Amino acid sequence: MRLAMVGLGKMGSNMARRLRRGGIEVVGYDHSLDMVVSLVAEEGMVGASSVEDAVSKLQSPRVVWLMLPSGEPTEKQIRELAPLLAKGDIVIDGGNSNYKDSQRRGNWLAEQGIGFMDAGTSGGIWGLDNGYCLMVGATPEVAKIMEPVLKALAPAADRGWAHVGPVGSGHFTKMIHNGIEYGMMQAMAEGLELLRGKQEFSLDLAEITELWRHSSVVRSWLLDLTAEALKSDQALDNVAPYVADSGEGRWTVVEAVEQGVAAPVLTLALQMRFASQNETGYGYRLLSMMRNAFGGHAVKQTGGGK
Amino acid sequence: MRLAMVGLGKMGSNMARRLRRGGIEVVGYDHSLDMVVSLVAEEGMVGASSVEDAVSKLQSPRVVWLMLPSGEPTEKQIRELAPLLAKGDIVIDGGNSNYKDSQRRGNWLAEQGIGFMDAGTSGGIWGLDNGYCLMVGATPEVAKIMEPVLKALAPAADRGWAHVGPVGSGHFTKMIHNGIEYGMMQAMAEGLELLRGKQEFSLDLAEITELWRHSSVVRSWLLDLTAEALKSDQALDNVAPYVADSGEGRWTVVEAVEQGVAAPVLTLALQMRFASQNETGYGYRLLSMMRNAFGGHAVKQTGGGK
Amino acid sequence: MRLAMVGLGKMGSNMARRLRRGGIEVVGYDHSLDMVVSLVAEEGMVGASSVEDAVSKLQSPRVVWLMLPSGEPTEKQIRELAPLLAKGDIVIDGGNSNYKDSQRRGNWLAEQGIGFMDAGTSGGIWGLDNGYCLMVGATPEVAKIMEPVLKALAPAADRGWAHVGPVGSGHFTKMIHNGIEYGMMQAMAEGLELLRGKQEFSLDLAEITELWRHSSVVRSWLLDLTAEALKSDQALDNVAPYVADSGEGRWTVVEAVEQGVAAPVLTLALQMRFASQNETGYGYRLLSMMRNAFGGHAVKQTGGGK
Amino acid sequence: MRLAMVGLGKMGSNMARRLRRGGIEVVGYDHSLDMVVSLVAEEGMVGASSVEDAVSKLQSPRVVWLMLPSGEPTEKQIRELAPLLAKGDIVIDGGNSNYKDSQRRGNWLAEQGIGFMDAGTSGGIWGLDNGYCLMVGATPEVAKIMEPVLKALAPAADRGWAHVGPVGSGHFTKMIHNGIEYGMMQAMAEGLELLRGKQEFSLDLAEITELWRHSSVVRSWLLDLTAEALKSDQALDNVAPYVADSGEGRWTVVEAVEQGVAAPVLTLALQMRFASQNETGYGYRLLSMMRNAFGGHAVKQTGGGK
Repeated sequence: MRLAMVGLGKMGSNMARRLRRGGIEVVGYDHSLDMVVSLVAEEGMVGASSVEDAVSKLQSPRVVWLMLPSGEPTEKQIRELAPLLAKGDIVIDGGNSNYKDSQRRGNWLAEQGIGFMDAGTSGGIWGLDNGYCLMVGATPEVAKIMEPVLKALAPAADRGWAHVGPVGSGHFTKMIHNGIEYGMMQAMAEGLELLRGKQEFSLDLAEITELWRHSSVVRSWLLDLTAEALKSDQALDNVAPYVADSGEGRWTVVEAVEQGVAAPVLTLALQMRFASQNETGYGYRLLSMMRNAFGGHAVKQTGGGK
Repeated sequence: MRLAMVGLGKMGSNMARRLRRGGIEVVGYDHSLDMVVSLVAEEGMVGASSVEDAVSKLQSPRVVWLMLPSGEPTEKQIRELAPLLAKGDIVIDGGNSNYKDSQRRGNWLAEQGIGFMDAGTSGGIWGLDNGYCLMVGATPEVAKIMEPVLKALAPAADRGWAHVGPVGSGHFTKMIHNGIEYGMMQAMAEGLELLRGKQEFSLDLAEITELWRHSSVVRSWLLDLTAEALKSDQALDNVAPYVADSGEGRWTVVEAVEQGVAAPVLTLALQMRFASQNETGYGYRLLSMMRNAFGGHAVKQTGGGK
Repeated sequence: MRLAMVGLGKMGSNMARRLRRGGIEVVGYDHSLDMVVSLVAEEGMVGASSVEDAVSKLQSPRVVWLMLPSGEPTEKQIRELAPLLAKGDIVIDGGNSNYKDSQRRGNWLAEQGIGFMDAGTSGGIWGLDNGYCLMVGATPEVAKIMEPVLKALAPAADRGWAHVGPVGSGHFTKMIHNGIEYGMMQAMAEGLELLRGKQEFSLDLAEITELWRHSSVVRSWLLDLTAEALKSDQALDNVAPYVADSGEGRWTVVEAVEQGVAAPVLTLALQMRFASQNETGYGYRLLSMMRNAFGGHAVKQTGGGK
Repeated sequence: MRLAMVGLGKMGSNMARRLRRGGIEVVGYDHSLDMVVSLVAEEGMVGASSVEDAVSKLQSPRVVWLMLPSGEPTEKQIRELAPLLAKGDIVIDGGNSNYKDSQRRGNWLAEQGIGFMDAGTSGGIWGLDNGYCLMVGATPEVAKIMEPVLKALAPAADRGWAHVGPVGSGHFTKMIHNGIEYGMMQAMAEGLELLRGKQEFSLDLAEITELWRHSSVVRSWLLDLTAEALKSDQALDNVAPYVADSGEGRWTVVEAVEQGVAAPVLTLALQMRFASQNETGYGYRLLSMMRNAFGGHAVKQTGGGK
């Protein structure tokens, strides 16, 4: 089996490596030539100098796996890629696209006879060694063709990948996965902050998280990583109190609103990240001003702007 | 009717003034002599040099209204006051005590034949002119005796005060009142922050809050004050994004937990104040560290400690 | 001044009445002939048998005020209306449309030289007597033309209406207004539920809400209405524990997500309504199942489906 | 090493078994004679007919491990047990007591020269085979004496148990552990409810949870159990939408309030359980009534009471 991998960043390059080690032929392209060159040298990947070149090095049915930032870059690439393909070829979006975009793109490609698969991919930087968890949306035909690739990327041939439903359902499942991830992370962070806040006990968070890894109800991979990280630093003085968020946490909250389903934990996990990002604290200033207005409570002054 | 007012701070002094203007004789004491002196001069209050002195200037049944910080100061004063009083006398706590403390103190005083009334008091700095909203817990006998005082403090003789139930219920009602207040304030602050955040519309928050005061569903006294304050400053550059909280918001959340009732809005209104007070952001640092650990996401660095 | 009012439901009919009483000529149309007939008889409205008929009874610049359900009905009406209008005419959407739709429609009409105004309208069934609070988005030219109408609908000529910004900003402001309304309602409901839950105090919620109306910090129009309603019934046995929601609460939460601003109180106020609407409680069933799985905790059985 | 185990319920009996299998001598007592008899027969436990009898079968320093319901039963037992013990003996509370109670009890026993250890125990019904995760608060001397017992109960001699700090800190750590557990469970339940709610995809939750167990970021023991349970039933028609809660989730929220730390996810996880338990929905009724009062929105009727 041979496919083209377009986008050889942090995720794409490791996936190309894992595919190679699993016996899949990979034609790789990235706008960074360096990465192409090193994968050619180290992994026996076939290098491509452009997407056109990559496509030309495939045989029918040609399979192109995109591993690009979601939004405009993925959209643009699919628009440019389609004219290079023919009926029966397959485009895979392994990035973090919004499932509605995937549905739309899948329909657009289907009109041209081109197959589409949305492959929600979890595993982060650990996927190269451990395998990736793959949540796949596609027609049965497309999913069938892609099986060897999925088996090579997954932790094992018989687990860690699944064809969960029609086009869009793979990214949908990945979106919800990430929503849950946000909630679990926030739960853990809140608990650990309370442990640390109980100063009279001088608790050692590295010891406790390590302890919990064994037979406790909260044992989990996130806990494994947290325990490991806390071993070298639990003061975290050099880590800014700023938590980025990506699209999937936001889309999960919008999905809950659209379904009319209460999802307070997933929502608050996201909104606390927003709070961490808020530099002006305008809402807090308003509250302080209101307290002053009705109760004459002193307002804490600032030099301005912050 | 004559009573002693102990504690002539921001609330107590204005209440003494309103009582005087309502024809009630007030014997006033405060550890700050200046305030005593000025109320004697301006309002015809009878000054007292100590609590003992204040009590000695009353006639049976002696009524002592405490307007002190909750917690230790109120506790200490009641302990010291009781031996100076006799059966049939009455102690009133008009401060923001926890209702469980009021129940305990009421029981303790009752064992000595001394009456107790917990008078939850709302109205802030505006109470002098507008009257105070008084939520009163007491036995029917005590409440009856105190009626002339309540009528003088309230906005009018027939409204703005009520004997809501037994000892403790006044402070309980005030506690819930403040919980609702937190929720309403937070609702308003969130909405206004979103208005301001929509930069393409360049909305004038002073104009909009003023507009809403007339016939909108959200019209309220808090909105009146907010609109007034925003007229002179809507950038709020000199107001720190720090919101203090007092006991009642916290007790309301604990009450919800004890009753086993979901009160997410009252709770989050409190917890967002906590977030505004959090200087270290340890939980956020943990989250940023976790994201790095599983996804290799870059951590925003800080020079330390913040 | 003369305008056409299309849609004479609960809101539209009362607005037509208030306009008539304010001296504005109204040509009214509704698919229900009965309402048209009675407004003709009672208020001297000019009746129309169709939208075309209504438009034909206007003079240039023709002004058509739509008071229709948001979404498809409003969209369809604007599509059908535009061909009947000419350059310089004005369409007003006084309903609860999403501000993004209003921006899109405003642009579409502007391409045809037709003016557009989005008029967020608050006041509910009380607007007829008290006037409506109007949040208006439009060009300065359109807003200027509409002034007499806005003054007639508002509580007074000089307040309760404002031209807050460009097209879309009126519905945006109304959306946020409703978000705040959800938060305030939920805050009040949570507090009152806690008052009622404190059974040892047997509190009278009608008495307490009436009490709070006078000088308390939480006094507000929502409290006025709540106190009034509780006077006749505070058990609420005949009111189902089901709270509907409309678009604006949802859009406010989505807006917060899009702005990346934490709005936990507005969000939870919405999500608790979702919880009230949830008939299956699937999430709760999952939690109960999980507790059983790890702790052997008994699962409460049900006959199924609920 | 020999100890007495008082309380041989679901947790205590399995812990007695695991201790026996680890070579610890156990004198067991329970008010249910049947359980005592069967553990004597099956595990070579020494039976006791009363707590006095159990104590009499120990040698100095006598160690009594309590595995009782928290609150009154544990309190009562410690009060009755102390007079039977002597200086240097040790009482262990392995139940789910509030850490403040453990601090108080530890102090009270210390005044009598009796050691105390609070052993927060996680692992549920799986602990017998997998070992228990033990979070221990005690003086270094007491913890040292108890090491052999902890090693026998833990998953292995060198992991899954830790002496985390002074008396009280074990139950504190367990409390926070459970708070995190609530948050993780709620995150998972919300996500799965959204998966199921997306009807157009007809997702198979058993397949997806099984899939996520392999290399996904959310892999965890809770997910393992959830996937297993969903295999046999994902409709959950026979599981009532009612989620019980125990003390520790509540105490975690109170701790957050006392520390002044925002813990919205842990709090909402608890409060959603409250919502599941709420039979009257009074807050929802109030909201429905309010909507009617200001907007004339129809109220959904009920036959009463629900």
